[in-house]
Amino acid sequence: MKEITIKTTVQRDLIDITAEVQKAVLDHKKKEGVCLVFVPHTTAGIFINETHDTDLRKDLLDQLNRMIPVEGGYRHAGGNADAHIKSSVIGCSLSIPVDGGILALGQWQGIYFFEGDGPRERKIKVSVY
Amino acid sequence: MKEITIKTTVQRDLIDITAEVQKAVLDHKKKEGVCLVFVPHTTAGIFINETHDTDLRKDLLDQLNRMIPVEGGYRHAGGNADAHIKSSVIGCSLSIPVDGGILALGQWQGIYFFEGDGPRERKIKVSVY
Amino acid sequence: MKEITIKTTVQRDLIDITAEVQKAVLDHKKKEGVCLVFVPHTTAGIFINETHDTDLRKDLLDQLNRMIPVEGGYRHAGGNADAHIKSSVIGCSLSIPVDGGILALGQWQGIYFFEGDGPRERKIKVSVY
Repeated sequence: MKEITIKTTVQRDLIDITAEVQKAVLDHKKKEGVCLVFVPHTTAGIFINETHDTDLRKDLLDQLNRMIPVEGGYRHAGGNADAHIKSSVIGCSLSIPVDGGILALGQWQGIYFFEGDGPRERKIKVSVY
Repeated sequence: MKEITIKTTVQRDLIDITAEVQKAVLDHKKKEGVCLVFVPHTTAGIFINETHDTDLRKDLLDQLNRMIPVEGGYRHAGGNADAHIKSSVIGCSLSIPVDGGILALGQWQGIYFFEGDGPRERKIKVSVY
Repeated sequence: MKEITIKTTVQRDLIDITAEVQKAVLDHKKKEGVCLVFVPHTTAGIFINETHDTDLRKDLLDQLNRMIPVEGGYRHAGGNADAHIKSSVIGCSLSIPVDGGILALGQWQGIYFFEGDGPRERKIKVSVY
């Protein structure tokens, strides 16, 4: 299992980690299989979408905040309940087919890491089966 | 890796693709393992639920539109930001156990393809490991 | 494939099934791989988050009810449309890396079973590949 480390710089962010995951897949040297990207944190998440347009990135963060407000009258201590809930809805586990040693992503697809309670150092586990 | 092609006919739709995925699993001729269904598009998605009741299908689409409105004052050009966000929340990757050569789905479960920006020709990748 | 049986006691609940899934993984006797946890029901779901704080558990259920109201003017007969929609958004399939024979979960992560239309007896399938 390979591990990626990223340092997030703000409290809530979306970070394109496609290149880092692809590098970990190459390190596995497995030509065909499935890549499992796993985030071992409870206030972060992972998903796939178009990662190039910074406008869409802002739309994604804004809409997450509309669906799951930062201030929601939550009971959980720590002030990060919204990040736990966003993490639960987004998910922390992502399976991607590997074909010819590389991620079989579509033309417009990239991998987003969602930081919900930064800034922090985060770990991401990448396995290929 | 097998590939399913579907032609969607409207802008936003849910399409039952259970039979097509099951056929691709049979073509793989693997008796035990995990089926990975992967959508390589950023304005579409995949999930499992009850696919027979057309009323529920409408409820699902309506509620997605309430959670992530078509018109949301989004920044992203192209007029399909809501489809990108719905795709991100629904997900584009689905793992299903295979038992005895067939998908080990529950009695009421089927596989839904979510089209968020059709009509288009869409590809779906099906692997069995 | 191992199967976990749980009896839910109320209509809507979140139940920590980490120990049960871990036991099923140990029974598989596979040291390295991926664990697939699959819920074969259409009004239930599965996800990972912090499972110790009962306040957060209530926050999660409350926020799910805000995003997908119990009473939403749904068409689907049976009075459980919200549970179908919650199940679709949360998901019924979860892949977790296995390392040294145990689930490679983060320090604060546990596995939540979402019951959306109980009380019922529910089955959860656990495979390790």
